[in-house]
Amino acid sequence: MTTIQLKTGSHDQLIDITADVRKVIKDSNIKNGICVVYTPHTTAAITINENADPDVITDMITGLNSLGFEKLPFRHMEGNSPSHLKSSLIGCSEQIIVENGTPVLGTWQGVFFCEFDGPRNRKVFITLTGK
Amino acid sequence: MTTIQLKTGSHDQLIDITADVRKVIKDSNIKNGICVVYTPHTTAAITINENADPDVITDMITGLNSLGFEKLPFRHMEGNSPSHLKSSLIGCSEQIIVENGTPVLGTWQGVFFCEFDGPRNRKVFITLTGK
Amino acid sequence: MTTIQLKTGSHDQLIDITADVRKVIKDSNIKNGICVVYTPHTTAAITINENADPDVITDMITGLNSLGFEKLPFRHMEGNSPSHLKSSLIGCSEQIIVENGTPVLGTWQGVFFCEFDGPRNRKVFITLTGK
Repeated sequence: MTTIQLKTGSHDQLIDITADVRKVIKDSNIKNGICVVYTPHTTAAITINENADPDVITDMITGLNSLGFEKLPFRHMEGNSPSHLKSSLIGCSEQIIVENGTPVLGTWQGVFFCEFDGPRNRKVFITLTGK
Repeated sequence: MTTIQLKTGSHDQLIDITADVRKVIKDSNIKNGICVVYTPHTTAAITINENADPDVITDMITGLNSLGFEKLPFRHMEGNSPSHLKSSLIGCSEQIIVENGTPVLGTWQGVFFCEFDGPRNRKVFITLTGK
Repeated sequence: MTTIQLKTGSHDQLIDITADVRKVIKDSNIKNGICVVYTPHTTAAITINENADPDVITDMITGLNSLGFEKLPFRHMEGNSPSHLKSSLIGCSEQIIVENGTPVLGTWQGVFFCEFDGPRNRKVFITLTGK
């Protein structure tokens, strides 16, 4: 298991970690299998989406914030229940198929760490199964 | 594969199954790999989120119900389309990295069974790959 | 890894690919493990939900469209940011437990390819780990 350290800079932010994922896969001895990308935080997530036009991830944040979670009468005293909700809706992990030592991502797909309660120091765990 | 039986008590309810997941991992012979937690129901889900303050999961239910699915003119005769939607938005499985025979969960992370159409008797399947 | 080719017929459409998944599992030599179903597109997704009453998947599309993403002032010039959002909310992959050479799906569960920006030609990748 490899740990990636991230420092996020704003409350909501998607950070492209595709290069890190590719490097961990390359450095492992796994040629064919599954790569799991996992974040151990409850107000963050991992997603796979377009990394060609940066407007896509800006729009993703706009869309999630449009759901109106910030206006709800939540009970959790820390006040970050909308961040927990976004985390569970997007999910804290992704899996990627590995073939011939490379991730089988689509042409436009990149892997993103999603910050929903930043800025913070964050971690991402990457591991592989296969042979 | 291990099957966990659950009896839910209300229409929407998140039940912490982290202890069950830990036990299945401990009882297996897998030291390093991936643990998959899967529910075979179409109006339930599995998520990973904070299990320290119980208000977080209450707020999670409040947030999902605020999306207004209950007011839509759905066609499915059983009347539980909002439950099916929540199931697909949260997802019916999670994967957890296993190292040295223990799940690599974050400090605040717990694994939850999500009931969206209870009360009912429910099942969760837990299995591991690795060695 | 097996590739399934799909041709979608409308902007939003869920296509039942359970039979394809079953066939790939049967044709592999894996008896016990995990099957990963992954789509390499950024405006599509994979979900597991009811495939008995077709109204359920119609309602799923109605529900996702009710979130109001189409009305937001998005920046991405292609105009399909709502499709990218739906892709990340549902997720581009699912995992299914395999036992004795068959997928451990619930009675009402089917595996669906989700088109959110069709009609298009699409691909789904299916692979297995285990033995």
